[in-house]
Amino acid sequence: MARDPTRTYFAGTDRDRAAFEAGIKLGSIVHQYVGTPLTSKTAAALERAIEAGARVQPLVEDVRVRIDRRSIHPRGPYRYAALTEDMLNVEVTIRVGAARVVGALRFVPDLDYPLMYLKDVRTPTKG
Amino acid sequence: MARDPTRTYFAGTDRDRAAFEAGIKLGSIVHQYVGTPLTSKTAAALERAIEAGARVQPLVEDVRVRIDRRSIHPRGPYRYAALTEDMLNVEVTIRVGAARVVGALRFVPDLDYPLMYLKDVRTPTKG
Amino acid sequence: MARDPTRTYFAGTDRDRAAFEAGIKLGSIVHQYVGTPLTSKTAAALERAIEAGARVQPLVEDVRVRIDRRSIHPRGPYRYAALTEDMLNVEVTIRVGAARVVGALRFVPDLDYPLMYLKDVRTPTKG
Amino acid sequence: MARDPTRTYFAGTDRDRAAFEAGIKLGSIVHQYVGTPLTSKTAAALERAIEAGARVQPLVEDVRVRIDRRSIHPRGPYRYAALTEDMLNVEVTIRVGAARVVGALRFVPDLDYPLMYLKDVRTPTKG
Repeated sequence: MARDPTRTYFAGTDRDRAAFEAGIKLGSIVHQYVGTPLTSKTAAALERAIEAGARVQPLVEDVRVRIDRRSIHPRGPYRYAALTEDMLNVEVTIRVGAARVVGALRFVPDLDYPLMYLKDVRTPTKG
Repeated sequence: MARDPTRTYFAGTDRDRAAFEAGIKLGSIVHQYVGTPLTSKTAAALERAIEAGARVQPLVEDVRVRIDRRSIHPRGPYRYAALTEDMLNVEVTIRVGAARVVGALRFVPDLDYPLMYLKDVRTPTKG
Repeated sequence: MARDPTRTYFAGTDRDRAAFEAGIKLGSIVHQYVGTPLTSKTAAALERAIEAGARVQPLVEDVRVRIDRRSIHPRGPYRYAALTEDMLNVEVTIRVGAARVVGALRFVPDLDYPLMYLKDVRTPTKG
Repeated sequence: MARDPTRTYFAGTDRDRAAFEAGIKLGSIVHQYVGTPLTSKTAAALERAIEAGARVQPLVEDVRVRIDRRSIHPRGPYRYAALTEDMLNVEVTIRVGAARVVGALRFVPDLDYPLMYLKDVRTPTKG
């Protein structure tokens, strides 16, 4: 990151930025693709496209997208569904300098809510 | 279409509906995917996902999606682009009863505009 | 429409195009805004923005967007919802030459489906 | 935040989460609304709707959205534009416990890039 030209614009530490970038990626995925028509047959193509779109974004070290097949409920006369946030299971790993953060999205039944959370935050030193 | 349960809701003819459905598919594609991060390397995965999403929708007989690689201009420190309507070249064929309509989207330089238009409209009888 | 420069690109009649444009507008609205965070308090601002965005598009004579307040079910620890197609009630009137078409979107309980349909199709002559 | 039921799911500190949530909001805004048809006349309605949608999301203390009127270039026969990330100027303030973070999005000409960045990060203690 030493020569990343965006660095001078940022307040905070590499760790702060890593958490921030993880949030960007998860928010982007949900609001880009929710509403996409799908069936269990087409879910894999959509998973691959979402992953490909995430990988070209800044500072992404790894990303894994799963659409829960059991939560795809085709309906209506034409028997298809639309992607909802509840169907998504995402993990994205961001690396900024020595900081590494894993952000995740999954539906949490106890909260009745598709939660985006920090699954792991690591830095050699605090920031 | 004789037993399509949605039929009683529709005013007009099968031909009218075919044109209407072609419009729905093109409008849906543009507003679902515009903004997706991409590079020329990831464009193929996105094309396949867009086609898969269109094929599950009502009355689609065929669909072809191309993202113009020459119009993908990576920029900024991280060298990627976001999908715009101008990059898209789409043809969708809709069949309703005996009516068949081809709707298309392509950037038209003379108009400086990504035009959605009816490329072909066919019915054995007028409607 | 006599001088509309896009006209030469279109197969079919003014009536065909009116049905096509109605479909575009409905498909666009759904796939642009589905996923937007909302509560019953913010629904009105979203309705106005959707209508404003539709009115600037080609050939729209009128548009009316309602979000069904009873179908907004806030959930999770933060008590908000995300816009779904089922919440939307839309009517858009398109005029092309002497043809006028009303396209509509509403959730139809009997079909368990948010149906986009042609509510009215009028032409002085058949096309 | 003491009783926020999502807390147990999070790795890291309140400060980490504040940065993460700021990223979510910015990523969400861009990928929800990019592509929306607009003119300089309709931009204000869209700004208000984007702000309303952000305010209902978790932990948002304040949000301000501006669409740069000078970057709206209507084009084509129908003289309208589509919202791009470059047009957006956003600041969102997130509060988690004693941590407060301001995330921002603006087009940076020197980078030729619409940059999302941390404008301010504050905690009474380092995390």
